[in-house]
Amino acid sequence: MIKVVLIGSGNVASHLAKIFQQTKNIDLIQHYRRNDRNDHLFDQNIPKTNSLNKLKKADIYFIAISDNHISTVSEQLKFKEGLVVHTSGSISMNQLKCAAHKGVFYPLQSFSKDKKIDFSNIPICIEAENAKDLVLLEKFVNLISNNCYKINSEQRKTLHVAAVFVNNFVNHLYYIGNEICNKNKIPFEILQPIIQETAKKIVELSPYEAQTGPAQRNDSKTIEKHKAMLTVNQQEIYTLLTKSIAKTYGEKL
Amino acid sequence: MIKVVLIGSGNVASHLAKIFQQTKNIDLIQHYRRNDRNDHLFDQNIPKTNSLNKLKKADIYFIAISDNHISTVSEQLKFKEGLVVHTSGSISMNQLKCAAHKGVFYPLQSFSKDKKIDFSNIPICIEAENAKDLVLLEKFVNLISNNCYKINSEQRKTLHVAAVFVNNFVNHLYYIGNEICNKNKIPFEILQPIIQETAKKIVELSPYEAQTGPAQRNDSKTIEKHKAMLTVNQQEIYTLLTKSIAKTYGEKL
Repeated sequence: MIKVVLIGSGNVASHLAKIFQQTKNIDLIQHYRRNDRNDHLFDQNIPKTNSLNKLKKADIYFIAISDNHISTVSEQLKFKEGLVVHTSGSISMNQLKCAAHKGVFYPLQSFSKDKKIDFSNIPICIEAENAKDLVLLEKFVNLISNNCYKINSEQRKTLHVAAVFVNNFVNHLYYIGNEICNKNKIPFEILQPIIQETAKKIVELSPYEAQTGPAQRNDSKTIEKHKAMLTVNQQEIYTLLTKSIAKTYGEKL
Repeated sequence: MIKVVLIGSGNVASHLAKIFQQTKNIDLIQHYRRNDRNDHLFDQNIPKTNSLNKLKKADIYFIAISDNHISTVSEQLKFKEGLVVHTSGSISMNQLKCAAHKGVFYPLQSFSKDKKIDFSNIPICIEAENAKDLVLLEKFVNLISNNCYKINSEQRKTLHVAAVFVNNFVNHLYYIGNEICNKNKIPFEILQPIIQETAKKIVELSPYEAQTGPAQRNDSKTIEKHKAMLTVNQQEIYTLLTKSIAKTYGEKL
């Protein structure tokens, strides 16, 4: 049984609490949060505290809070035993300022409050100061996911940027597609199959090979017609991404 | 049995030939292409011609060629019976210059040569000059797909632009994610689950609700750190999309 304490009450923390509770051989013994505002997101049976001085003795302490507060919160952890990990993609391991051993447990997924998550396929990137802790983390990850990756702080930061492109920015392009549909009274559902297919395609083909469309084939006539239909903001994005695709495929527009 | 003639030898034409041949009650009686360069992509048993004057009598003629040539090729079709449709998202129905009836059959999907397509889920947008032809097209579409939409030329054009955002541009963001991974010796497969999840999420949530990330939560510290890790081209895209997301959520960066 691996004993864990969870620190934080946001999106990531609430998803972690759920999977920790569901998993055999993981014992979530305590939950720290500053106040009770998000307690409805957590099982009421988890012992709670709002004092960092009253944390129970555990094998791993998970800090799942906003990036800006990781250093200051970790600084208040005065105990010397156990492993303290944060769950952030963009924060170095050495920004943990606790007395105990340090590590990182970064689940590479986008957590929304209203959407259930299947952890078994989520890649979990781990890092630890020393080999023994890395073995513990790996063992822990294998209890909840099939995809454990050892990734150092530098790699994790770039991975986090890459995830912003393929997740946050991609979702914003979905949003623009939705906007264009709404404006022209077209049901957005009509775009669902091409959205799913575009994502599935790159399981078999590289994104370089999978690229299609007017920018890739240098179809300037269509590009100009498209731009004329867009708002100023949409035009800016269309122009920049078209230029970037054309550059990738070596054509001048 | 609906008799059809196929005009064109590119990606879309070769996928259409396959589904037409596989489908009961569709008889692909002839294939026109300018030359035999792509004949290997087509079943050798389909009767072929390279003369537009020698087209057989059919119920529907499908013009699946590049947008720039639809008008000039259709102009050469001198017969008056039957229905001539093009398969383009961005060309109006009235750019068909044939003597016969006119219509549009636009499958809203991205066709790659090396990727099999399941037509049953592809939305097919139809349009016709007169009601009788629209009934015929609808009947035809129902043989191969469960998603038939009546969409006029103006709507179809904007739908095509929306598809460029959610397909071509999204794929380019995947490409950038891949680039960042390669540069930092991270396997691209690590991003696959978040890519698939991002696409699946918007089946349940609207893209507006599904948005997460530093731009949406106005996390300027992370944004600046991210930019510092990117190439000039990647930075430009990061900055513009971040600005657009921030604007959408009403925050000033």
